Amino acid sequence: MELSRAGNKMASLSGLRGIMEDIATSMGTSTGRQWLNLGIGNPAAIPEVGNVWKRMTIRALDDSFEDTSCRYGPSRGLPRLIDAIVEYFNDRYDWGIGPRNVVVGPGSQMLCFIAAALFTGSGDERDSTIVLPMVPDYTGYQGLNMTPGGIVGVEPLLRIQDAGRSFGYLFDLPAIERQRDVGLMLLSSPSNPAGRCATPDEIGSLIAAAEAHDVPLVIDNAYGAPFPRIGNAITAPVRHDHVVHCFSLSKAGLPGERLGFAIADERYIDPIVSFLANSTLHAPQLVQSALALALKSDVLDTLVETAISPFYAHRRKFVESLLFQSLPEGVAWRLHVGEGGMFFWVWVDEDWFDDLTLYQKLKERGVFVVPGRHFFTDPENSTGLGRHPRQCFRVSITPDAATLVAGVEVIGQTLSDLHAGRTRVPANP
Amino acid sequence: MELSRAGNKMASLSGLRGIMEDIATSMGTSTGRQWLNLGIGNPAAIPEVGNVWKRMTIRALDDSFEDTSCRYGPSRGLPRLIDAIVEYFNDRYDWGIGPRNVVVGPGSQMLCFIAAALFTGSGDERDSTIVLPMVPDYTGYQGLNMTPGGIVGVEPLLRIQDAGRSFGYLFDLPAIERQRDVGLMLLSSPSNPAGRCATPDEIGSLIAAAEAHDVPLVIDNAYGAPFPRIGNAITAPVRHDHVVHCFSLSKAGLPGERLGFAIADERYIDPIVSFLANSTLHAPQLVQSALALALKSDVLDTLVETAISPFYAHRRKFVESLLFQSLPEGVAWRLHVGEGGMFFWVWVDEDWFDDLTLYQKLKERGVFVVPGRHFFTDPENSTGLGRHPRQCFRVSITPDAATLVAGVEVIGQTLSDLHAGRTRVPANP
Repeated sequence: MELSRAGNKMASLSGLRGIMEDIATSMGTSTGRQWLNLGIGNPAAIPEVGNVWKRMTIRALDDSFEDTSCRYGPSRGLPRLIDAIVEYFNDRYDWGIGPRNVVVGPGSQMLCFIAAALFTGSGDERDSTIVLPMVPDYTGYQGLNMTPGGIVGVEPLLRIQDAGRSFGYLFDLPAIERQRDVGLMLLSSPSNPAGRCATPDEIGSLIAAAEAHDVPLVIDNAYGAPFPRIGNAITAPVRHDHVVHCFSLSKAGLPGERLGFAIADERYIDPIVSFLANSTLHAPQLVQSALALALKSDVLDTLVETAISPFYAHRRKFVESLLFQSLPEGVAWRLHVGEGGMFFWVWVDEDWFDDLTLYQKLKERGVFVVPGRHFFTDPENSTGLGRHPRQCFRVSITPDAATLVAGVEVIGQTLSDLHAGRTRVPANP
Repeated sequence: MELSRAGNKMASLSGLRGIMEDIATSMGTSTGRQWLNLGIGNPAAIPEVGNVWKRMTIRALDDSFEDTSCRYGPSRGLPRLIDAIVEYFNDRYDWGIGPRNVVVGPGSQMLCFIAAALFTGSGDERDSTIVLPMVPDYTGYQGLNMTPGGIVGVEPLLRIQDAGRSFGYLFDLPAIERQRDVGLMLLSSPSNPAGRCATPDEIGSLIAAAEAHDVPLVIDNAYGAPFPRIGNAITAPVRHDHVVHCFSLSKAGLPGERLGFAIADERYIDPIVSFLANSTLHAPQLVQSALALALKSDVLDTLVETAISPFYAHRRKFVESLLFQSLPEGVAWRLHVGEGGMFFWVWVDEDWFDDLTLYQKLKERGVFVVPGRHFFTDPENSTGLGRHPRQCFRVSITPDAATLVAGVEVIGQTLSDLHAGRTRVPANP
């Protein structure tokens, strides 16, 4: 038995996946131990959100089970969902799109995987890569490309602000423009992990770069507008002939059903539809039917406005206050400016700090966070950021309040202890 | 914009897909015309089957909506479904498998796509292909490989029997053994389109060939045992360390929800799990929960025994009698021996017959069947079968009885007309 080259790449899991398995295994096997998991990527369990989707699913089931679950469907998506998406985006953003601009898939990650397979890799004229215009970004992107080395992350510029208590990343546009053999540009906005929302001006610059490279700019709106709209600096998505917008139902409440869709020009959408037809045929249809109902009835808009957005806005403030209460003053830690998304991204700007060491120390104390290095594509060889990619960690704001209070307190103590005994902390190789 | 080489392949659709779109477009746009579609691949609408799955889905929804639909799950599959599958196959077939031998995916076609990506294509030491040990076989297999020319179908030996009224295909084992650069062998059994069930002896020979090539033999049990068990010659699946078994819920009643699973040695299953994690994360979970309930409660077994198997057995006899009533005696048409699956496979062994011409003539008369050539990988250049790959067509037994009666009658008339005016039928280029 021999794996193909693509097989070897796809059979490997990112470094973060190892961490996630460590968390799952630890939490699954320990007996009696109370783990505090601040590393999770699940959306918060908001009862109202679950109730609404349950109601929509039951309605879809009553209305159309035989026609959706019991029959094959079109690879583009259930026609009434495609129509609902077209109407929704035209009404809301005046995009003037039609059904041929839309494709529904089994999760937006699968749509990104397909886009990467279509637009990057070995070509007849050249080989090309996925370019992340800013790292840190979602580690799952590093699992999309089937070519080893087929992804490049552009490091951002760093700006320290608020008298050192916070910091922000800026796009390094000249570096993005300098990239060679770009096949596709991809970013999440608001981003995972930093919660950064690209401004309309920045999106404009990225579009110009995508045009110059003649490649699609894929924007992953998993946390953005129009749903779930988690953040206070989220702007309307921008329609452009070089932009492929991906939207997901996961953070709006249904991660387990794997539903997402993409909107773009036909030249990008058509090959995605064909790829779906050749691989997974189509997305599951009961949940497509439920989403169609939710879009047509304003149920989803109401849910975002009254439940999802306010919940996370409150949570973000709450966790921020916990961090400021618990993290030691004598340590140069900084939060990335919190614009959106489900996480806090903490930078400990100290020579003695190492993200994997913190991960291990916290694990010994029953707490999980996500070490930051895996959100960079080449954390060991940063050209402009020094040790920064190994000095960050991600704290989720979605666990319940008691877990957050207890967990952040342990993080604070552990940072203090590491600081106090810093000469004894073994540097991670 | 430029598509990668894999992208170009995956953005193209098989010839059959063009036919299927022609059918869908014709049926969708014509006004007032009564189309008789005998080309469909959907399972029959058996009310009892739909009712049972609806009940299971509602139970899953009541039991666990918040834990399944509202949370991410493991890439291998919902643990209680994995456990149910392990128990079911160990109880029934004494396979001695554990959870690490199982992976659940969004449809068995996606699992086959992943296996093709893992085990065929460009390798460090060699490039390898998908080998179909017998064509005709499911046209969707030709869409799986991301390398142009990455699939090879081995032509069968032909045996005419029953005084010329039926025929059967036999594996050409020496030709299968002679194949070079095999990466994976793949077959459906019962097969689509011919309904052929590989015997345990034949499976043994294919396994020996797979061992000699040191590649997995992927067996697609979409119509087979333990469910939906459509056919009278279906034997138990054979467990072997070179066999990857794929099972699907589609023909057991839920094609629209895209659920399948594979059982094999860990060395095959582990990379499939990783590929899923990197691409689509995991299969939809509400339907996983419904299947777990159905497996544990014997509901699925009962459904197969009392509803699915008897329905198709009856249907097969019914359609066979229609064909013998309606197809002209003066034409040398033959049925592939009907052992299983959802189709009749008709060979018109006449020089004047062309499958695409029949398709067009039938379409003019409001009837759809599927022309046979696309089930072969290279129908224009058969080495041993002559024009046979262009002399067959597929008739579905799943439409309602009235459609079948009227449709088969038109097929008979059309064959007679083609026969009578055979010099005037334009040969398809």
